[in-house]
Amino acid sequence: MALLAVGSVAFDSIRTPHGQVDDIVGGSATYFSVTASCFTPVRIVAVIGEDFGKEQLRVFAGRAIDTAGLEQVAGKTFRWRGQYAGDMNEAQTLETQLNVFERFAPKIPAGYLDSEFVFLGNIDPVLQLHVREQLPKARLVACDSMNFWIKGRLPELKRTLAQVDALIINEGEARLLSGQQNLKRAVTEIQKLGPRIVVIKRGEYGVVLFTDSGIFAAPGYPLEEVRDPTGAGDTFAGGFMGYLAQQGNLSEANLRRAVVYGSVMASFAVEDFGLTRLLRLAHAEIECRFHEFKNLTHFDA
Amino acid sequence: MALLAVGSVAFDSIRTPHGQVDDIVGGSATYFSVTASCFTPVRIVAVIGEDFGKEQLRVFAGRAIDTAGLEQVAGKTFRWRGQYAGDMNEAQTLETQLNVFERFAPKIPAGYLDSEFVFLGNIDPVLQLHVREQLPKARLVACDSMNFWIKGRLPELKRTLAQVDALIINEGEARLLSGQQNLKRAVTEIQKLGPRIVVIKRGEYGVVLFTDSGIFAAPGYPLEEVRDPTGAGDTFAGGFMGYLAQQGNLSEANLRRAVVYGSVMASFAVEDFGLTRLLRLAHAEIECRFHEFKNLTHFDA
Repeated sequence: MALLAVGSVAFDSIRTPHGQVDDIVGGSATYFSVTASCFTPVRIVAVIGEDFGKEQLRVFAGRAIDTAGLEQVAGKTFRWRGQYAGDMNEAQTLETQLNVFERFAPKIPAGYLDSEFVFLGNIDPVLQLHVREQLPKARLVACDSMNFWIKGRLPELKRTLAQVDALIINEGEARLLSGQQNLKRAVTEIQKLGPRIVVIKRGEYGVVLFTDSGIFAAPGYPLEEVRDPTGAGDTFAGGFMGYLAQQGNLSEANLRRAVVYGSVMASFAVEDFGLTRLLRLAHAEIECRFHEFKNLTHFDA
Repeated sequence: MALLAVGSVAFDSIRTPHGQVDDIVGGSATYFSVTASCFTPVRIVAVIGEDFGKEQLRVFAGRAIDTAGLEQVAGKTFRWRGQYAGDMNEAQTLETQLNVFERFAPKIPAGYLDSEFVFLGNIDPVLQLHVREQLPKARLVACDSMNFWIKGRLPELKRTLAQVDALIINEGEARLLSGQQNLKRAVTEIQKLGPRIVVIKRGEYGVVLFTDSGIFAAPGYPLEEVRDPTGAGDTFAGGFMGYLAQQGNLSEANLRRAVVYGSVMASFAVEDFGLTRLLRLAHAEIECRFHEFKNLTHFDA
């Protein structure tokens, strides 16, 4: 089923203990769309500047990604520069140039208005709500957010959360949003704001899914080498939403499998810088790691 | 099968955001033995002072714990005072009085020499090795350690590790011991030192088991309230070793179930201060939470 993603497209410059790259294509909508397109057709809504040329557009080409909603405007593309050290669980932002992203006003092409699955990437909650309100046929709307909006736009964020089905968020952000240190209590408070599905991302420790039917915890996939964690959260969301849109079924069993597919995709993403690993990923590799995940977590009761 | 535990018995004074207790019975051998005795008979080797009276000894009474190896000597019992704040993932030690524990020289009663399962709690690695060498019939010897010994007694710790089958250790300690930041690489280095089974404890994030057959990751059990994390690691070890000694079988399937039983027991321990919750735990509760763990982690592949 049709999956719409709104978020950022960016140029990232990243330094990790394993190397350094400059001005590679990144952004939440990019990681999400490239990942989700492994499962289902994706419609992207984002803004790029004049410096985003044919070479950069190739990340979307030859994949099931509809770029009718990728608006090109005068100016430069959003730029982020950051680094990771130590256990690489948190990025240190060195520089942010919002550029054309500063005045981003998502425009939904007419052909996208029937979208049934929607991912509202980490943008101003006012814009997230504006997008959500234009999609009356949406069956599952998921959104992301971050400290910046929780601290600076809490009333607006709460209005958005009241209109979404799922929140996909980092553990620390869940604590900040809810004012609760205990994760279970934090999620209970968040569910009162609107989302009945809450997905807590814990970096290398994995993901916890909270639904009406219970709690599902998936560990992180143990890797010998994490080269670049950038985009892991949006890649997770892309696998999660991509699988659900492909299946078109929101049963508890499917939500759990979606968490595992999201985790599988994120585990690939961090194996190399930027989109490198995702862009050369074969379907058989995804299925193989999905079954490795089963083996990683299975015990006989 | 017979399970022997060597470690500390202590008086703990603990402050957490949920309250404060003074001079309650604690110590690695205590948490381990009380927990393991839910699964199998335990033999304890530890030292107590003159201040450890009948009232305190009641924690071992009425359980399958042989206290012939609990030596009482002149002086005061080991005392620890600590507190937890914030996410309570790490204890802050406020005071340590080694007292009789300073000159602890574990004596193995003759009746214990046929022990087949052995847990060497977190004591001087020279003493751990001395105990291990007196137990020629041991089929599974597991040990714990900590930063203090890794930094101050590394050659001695390596000699001990060369003679044990399993190491049960915190994530940060595994990194310190191996010099590797990446967990998988850290464990590979540790396995080269001797233990073929490595169990990594990650606090609220759960446990990862590394064996020749693969990797098994168990999440932490999500609790609404963690009142006191003291002893969680030794409680885990007690459930893990207790179940294995009960089964007498070291298959991969049993090792995985043992990790889950250890996690179940630790999840109970932290629900109240000290041994409170463990001492009033019913078998049916253990089995019930074991099955809740299955539901927490299960997905259909």
